[in-house]
Amino acid sequence: MISIAILGHGVVGSGVAEVLLHNEKGITAKAGDKIRVTRILDLRSFPDLPYADLFTTNFDDILNDPDIRIVVETMGGLHPAYDFVKASLLAGKSVVTSNKELVAAKGDELLAIAKENNLNFLFEASVGGGIPILRPMDQCLAANEVFEVAGILNGTTNFMLTKMIREGMSFDGALALAQKLGYAERDPSADVEGHDACRKICILASLAFGKHVLPEEVHTEGITNLTEQDVAYAAACGGVIKLVGRATRTEDGHLFCYVAPMILPRDNLLADVNDVFNAIMVRGDSVGDVVFVGRGAGKLPTASAVVADVIDEVKHLKARKYLFWGPGEKGHVRDHRLAPTRLLLCFSCEEDAGALVQIGRMFGDVRMISIPDAPDNEVAFVTPCMPEYLLEEKIATFTGMTLTRRLRMY
Amino acid sequence: MISIAILGHGVVGSGVAEVLLHNEKGITAKAGDKIRVTRILDLRSFPDLPYADLFTTNFDDILNDPDIRIVVETMGGLHPAYDFVKASLLAGKSVVTSNKELVAAKGDELLAIAKENNLNFLFEASVGGGIPILRPMDQCLAANEVFEVAGILNGTTNFMLTKMIREGMSFDGALALAQKLGYAERDPSADVEGHDACRKICILASLAFGKHVLPEEVHTEGITNLTEQDVAYAAACGGVIKLVGRATRTEDGHLFCYVAPMILPRDNLLADVNDVFNAIMVRGDSVGDVVFVGRGAGKLPTASAVVADVIDEVKHLKARKYLFWGPGEKGHVRDHRLAPTRLLLCFSCEEDAGALVQIGRMFGDVRMISIPDAPDNEVAFVTPCMPEYLLEEKIATFTGMTLTRRLRMY
Repeated sequence: MISIAILGHGVVGSGVAEVLLHNEKGITAKAGDKIRVTRILDLRSFPDLPYADLFTTNFDDILNDPDIRIVVETMGGLHPAYDFVKASLLAGKSVVTSNKELVAAKGDELLAIAKENNLNFLFEASVGGGIPILRPMDQCLAANEVFEVAGILNGTTNFMLTKMIREGMSFDGALALAQKLGYAERDPSADVEGHDACRKICILASLAFGKHVLPEEVHTEGITNLTEQDVAYAAACGGVIKLVGRATRTEDGHLFCYVAPMILPRDNLLADVNDVFNAIMVRGDSVGDVVFVGRGAGKLPTASAVVADVIDEVKHLKARKYLFWGPGEKGHVRDHRLAPTRLLLCFSCEEDAGALVQIGRMFGDVRMISIPDAPDNEVAFVTPCMPEYLLEEKIATFTGMTLTRRLRMY
Repeated sequence: MISIAILGHGVVGSGVAEVLLHNEKGITAKAGDKIRVTRILDLRSFPDLPYADLFTTNFDDILNDPDIRIVVETMGGLHPAYDFVKASLLAGKSVVTSNKELVAAKGDELLAIAKENNLNFLFEASVGGGIPILRPMDQCLAANEVFEVAGILNGTTNFMLTKMIREGMSFDGALALAQKLGYAERDPSADVEGHDACRKICILASLAFGKHVLPEEVHTEGITNLTEQDVAYAAACGGVIKLVGRATRTEDGHLFCYVAPMILPRDNLLADVNDVFNAIMVRGDSVGDVVFVGRGAGKLPTASAVVADVIDEVKHLKARKYLFWGPGEKGHVRDHRLAPTRLLLCFSCEEDAGALVQIGRMFGDVRMISIPDAPDNEVAFVTPCMPEYLLEEKIATFTGMTLTRRLRMY
């Protein structure tokens, strides 16, 4: 029998306990050993639960219990999760976490400690909830040169954008609905400002390209400024707006990595992923595009991914395996403004601005876009593909034209 | 250095050699050892290849070479592939295969031999080409009770159906185009009659539910009879026709397993998978629906999956791991006619048949469907959900009505 402890009895932690109890027979068969939760750390007490006697408020009860071989961290946040996970690894316990903030900030350090101590540190649930993605990606990586990872990494914003696209809702209306349905928190900023997606693309990019990518290195735009008109312009371009996290490898081995609302063409495999679903695309030289789709959040999907990691650690208590990446490197992630980009730009033009002449002179042949309800003095077009800073330099020369909208094309 | 042999230098076998040579540095790093192809079995010779000296026409050269630890079988077909794979395992060599016919027919036996001899027998490429599916499914299975696996498992027919749906092509026109583009063979029967999809759902169902499912136990319908009118009826139902392989677990632990064209509702995650893409959906109690999408065939995607398996076997030469299922069992797969089903039925009706009265009397409230160009005497409706044999008994009582079309609803 293998004893495990759970840190944090919130949504995910209680789900882990539930999945372990509910599928005990099958899980024992798969793990080759009985898995038993012997301690749960939480500041609250849960006197009505059948396993109420397992709770402790003192982490040392877990750290100093030599029988506990695996620690499951589902507290979220950086502290004290980081301190507890690090101490657990240093004490010879393998760790499973669902905490994307922790992995995005400290993954390289914790992986190195796990490696030194011949332990496992797994975190499948930190990206894409229950979708198996990190290990399949590792598998893709084995026989492929991967040059891009991109995804719809946040279910809340994808739900909101789906409502804005399909039902013409406003941003505020979609947010209110998401909050009502429990998809969005009362303070939705981590979702709608892109920080959640940013942490996930950091983890994916670190794994895909072998060096740690920190959230502060990733240019991050949210969806808070998106309007019904943006949705209409995306449709007029033949696409849909999605909040995308994207990491691409440059020819010289550096990365471009950013999170932003992007117009995806309709035939992109990510374009049809709607509602709270997440999807991650891996682009490899041999395999082409592979996409993994599923619910990216929720108690049971996330818990099932945590439990799958626990089973895997039970099967590999003596042998490290799987995922690894090294520390980050200054300059590894390049300024996103150097990345070749196409933008959809809208300008409000003064009557005598000669907008079309100015645009034509600067960009040559461009694709003009119009939507039915646009004001008469609005001009919109899709730029050619060039580094963003160059696009900005060019449009700074326009006179009598005020930039009113700017959307990235995938 | 680990020596491997390749059986069959066809599309996939030559792709394996290509991927191993092209990504050698990365592959060595991932496998932790250099992988070297030392023998290739093929009846043909390839004097112009840089590795022309590796070819042999005699399997014994491989079987009796103790240095060869891993045999890659990419010949296809049942014989002699089965004999060679079995002999290799009995001789202490691990095996990787891309051969779905072999795994669907003999998977349980070969897995058992591998287990007895503490070897690995991996076949990720046999389903979904380069899409990592078998191991992610194993991962899903670890912490979930899986009750359904379904997929678009054949890229050729999915390409053809996409052309029929989007461009109004006929079956013959779509087939001719698929052949012209090299997606369909000159004899397309394995694809269009559903046999290829059948083998793949056998492998998926065997893995998902633990007992071998043989192709002859799986009711298989192809797409050869589909017409433009079927496509139009599917659209009128709010769906699209896809060739689906599906295995569902019944409450008493048996299976329903079949391959058939089905009308998928537009919001089904498989409905938007088009062209030559494959997709596999796994439905688990905790994780919900998870879908894996990618190119299901082609030289390099398939080869990359084979190479990923080879790397995994190199890393686990001393320890068996992963996938396993037991032998089949009579009655494990139940007669598909017992499965609860909804059908779209069309009847050509005699003038005085009183079709609506007969239908109403037999089924109560049904959903009537019409398409613009239907003949005046055609009546179409979607049945309630009940076992197929019951539906058949009911419609056998109709008088003055001739069944002209019957499509399964997903």
